[in-house]
Amino acid sequence: MTDKSTILAPGSTIGILGGGQLGRMLALAAAKLGLKSHIYCPDPQSPAFDVTPFKTVAAYDDVEALKAFAAQVDVVTYEFENVPAATAEVLAGIKPLRPGANALAVSQDRLLEKGFLASKNIPVAPYRAVHSLDELHQAVAEHGLPAVLKTTRLGYDGKGQRVLRAPGDAEAAFAELAPHPLVLEGFVPFEKEISVVVARGTDGTVRAFDAAENVHRHHILHTSTVPADIPPGVEKHAAMLAKVIVVALDYVGVLGVEFFVVPGERPTLLVNEIAPRVHNSGHWTEAVCLTDQFEQHIRAIAGWPLGDPRRMADVVMQNLVGDEVEMVPNGLDGDTQPHLYGKAEARPGRKMGHINRVVRG
Amino acid sequence: MTDKSTILAPGSTIGILGGGQLGRMLALAAAKLGLKSHIYCPDPQSPAFDVTPFKTVAAYDDVEALKAFAAQVDVVTYEFENVPAATAEVLAGIKPLRPGANALAVSQDRLLEKGFLASKNIPVAPYRAVHSLDELHQAVAEHGLPAVLKTTRLGYDGKGQRVLRAPGDAEAAFAELAPHPLVLEGFVPFEKEISVVVARGTDGTVRAFDAAENVHRHHILHTSTVPADIPPGVEKHAAMLAKVIVVALDYVGVLGVEFFVVPGERPTLLVNEIAPRVHNSGHWTEAVCLTDQFEQHIRAIAGWPLGDPRRMADVVMQNLVGDEVEMVPNGLDGDTQPHLYGKAEARPGRKMGHINRVVRG
Repeated sequence: MTDKSTILAPGSTIGILGGGQLGRMLALAAAKLGLKSHIYCPDPQSPAFDVTPFKTVAAYDDVEALKAFAAQVDVVTYEFENVPAATAEVLAGIKPLRPGANALAVSQDRLLEKGFLASKNIPVAPYRAVHSLDELHQAVAEHGLPAVLKTTRLGYDGKGQRVLRAPGDAEAAFAELAPHPLVLEGFVPFEKEISVVVARGTDGTVRAFDAAENVHRHHILHTSTVPADIPPGVEKHAAMLAKVIVVALDYVGVLGVEFFVVPGERPTLLVNEIAPRVHNSGHWTEAVCLTDQFEQHIRAIAGWPLGDPRRMADVVMQNLVGDEVEMVPNGLDGDTQPHLYGKAEARPGRKMGHINRVVRG
Repeated sequence: MTDKSTILAPGSTIGILGGGQLGRMLALAAAKLGLKSHIYCPDPQSPAFDVTPFKTVAAYDDVEALKAFAAQVDVVTYEFENVPAATAEVLAGIKPLRPGANALAVSQDRLLEKGFLASKNIPVAPYRAVHSLDELHQAVAEHGLPAVLKTTRLGYDGKGQRVLRAPGDAEAAFAELAPHPLVLEGFVPFEKEISVVVARGTDGTVRAFDAAENVHRHHILHTSTVPADIPPGVEKHAAMLAKVIVVALDYVGVLGVEFFVVPGERPTLLVNEIAPRVHNSGHWTEAVCLTDQFEQHIRAIAGWPLGDPRRMADVVMQNLVGDEVEMVPNGLDGDTQPHLYGKAEARPGRKMGHINRVVRG
């Protein structure tokens, strides 16, 4: 029942699976459009519960709770790609699920994702499925080292992966990550990582935000800088590839695409991964775009016309991780827009908020 | 107990009196800063109740409810200037009330307000208090016609006022508006109305947004255009007068000042009225400022450093009144940022939302 013609009237309710900061920011964007949000999350302390009175606290496999939730909302979306397939099926049987179940299936599994991208002639890093230690050794022999062994599912922020630098690393890495299905990715000598957040509406309109140049620290996004320091042709190519992806998926909503920029006579792009949701590297849009990624996602899934993704200024987004959040409020200066997620405890490695700094001419 | 040194930590709760669109937009801004909002409003259908789980439904003179509310929040603010003095007193005795009770007292009463402004050498339209029909006739003789007879309290959107064009209008106007205390204002041959939204922090920092040029329809704000079409010297002067007002009031928060621009060899400014709160003519800031008026107000009353009020683009804000809201979503085009207030019923004259249109070079 993914009826693409559905246009939500103001006053309708967006159902959001997941109560973290992305769900919270989606709910805030929905409110600006006169839409209500109903948050579904198993954690009673979810940050998103502070920005709407409509909530369900239940497990993602609680079918009765899912059915009751779906009955109370007009469209269902999610803040994370690891929504179980059975959960998606229950919800999609009752209300439009946007983005659709196919986007979830593809992005949940690195092998499926790479296979999908390759089938659309979108370049990805060399990879090979690994079902046994023998296969791992073969893959290492084939791709050379260094290489990265990853679980095909449920990895994020550097979790579920090991770098292999010497042949002797293979056995320990395999022991740590198996029995999960694995994939070995050839190491890409990339110069930098960029990302593009792209949106597609129910009417098929596609709009991409400008590319961001991303820097990570300890496997967690540290900064996104816009504009990215890449040739204009490379930026255009990245936007084009992102658009190909959402069209191929018959996608509705916002999707993030991470690219490696590989140096050469002309720099080339490889897709690292895609995320069928609003993306950390798109938080800068809130500061300098008339329509930010959160509003764009809500507009798309509500069947509304997409907004204008153009940028009014240069900007740097910086994540506030762990106790970095203590810079708010006293470390704020004039050119800084803070955004905190309302999390009570600033644990190490936990994303607590972000700041956008506008760079004025 | 207006302890100006209080700095709210993230996770603190803003208490907001009033559950209309301004309270709703303040709550959304607070959420971005990692602050909770508790809305106090007698109307169980208040738009602001959709954006926070923390609410009190009670009358503004319910002392027990006010006390319980104050006990649950860290600072109290309001979305409307007609907060009863007794209500303000109860709240200010328990938690910091920002802006303070003096700002409420002055802005609730046109005579007090004009007296205050005149005492600071800020020009206002000629006026005279009217306690009787005789005094009205005297005032008309003194100021000439046309003139406007207004109640000193509780007027808004053109309510509580009558234009006198001929001497014979006086008696009927007086009969309609008495026995409320009244004031006759001399008619000002103004060319246009502008407004300035200004903020003052607990540390005394003052920041003004650019002036907006306002056009009304049926006594309700229709559009605010920024920049205003006025000479730079006039805009600077308006900002200066707005700053004088917040300093003189020892003010904390955002305040709106409406000016008449009176043509002449050099245009002059008269203050029409002040509003101790976020202001409809400041809604444009949401589209083109890194810190909008709602965040600026929350920063100020939380004791946080003020943000940057500079503008990234030209913009026109248009109110959506009554069924004008039906342009959302299908009438939206790319350069438009809509903001709807979540009101169920689009009654004539009711502010349902607004749109910001960015004018790009």
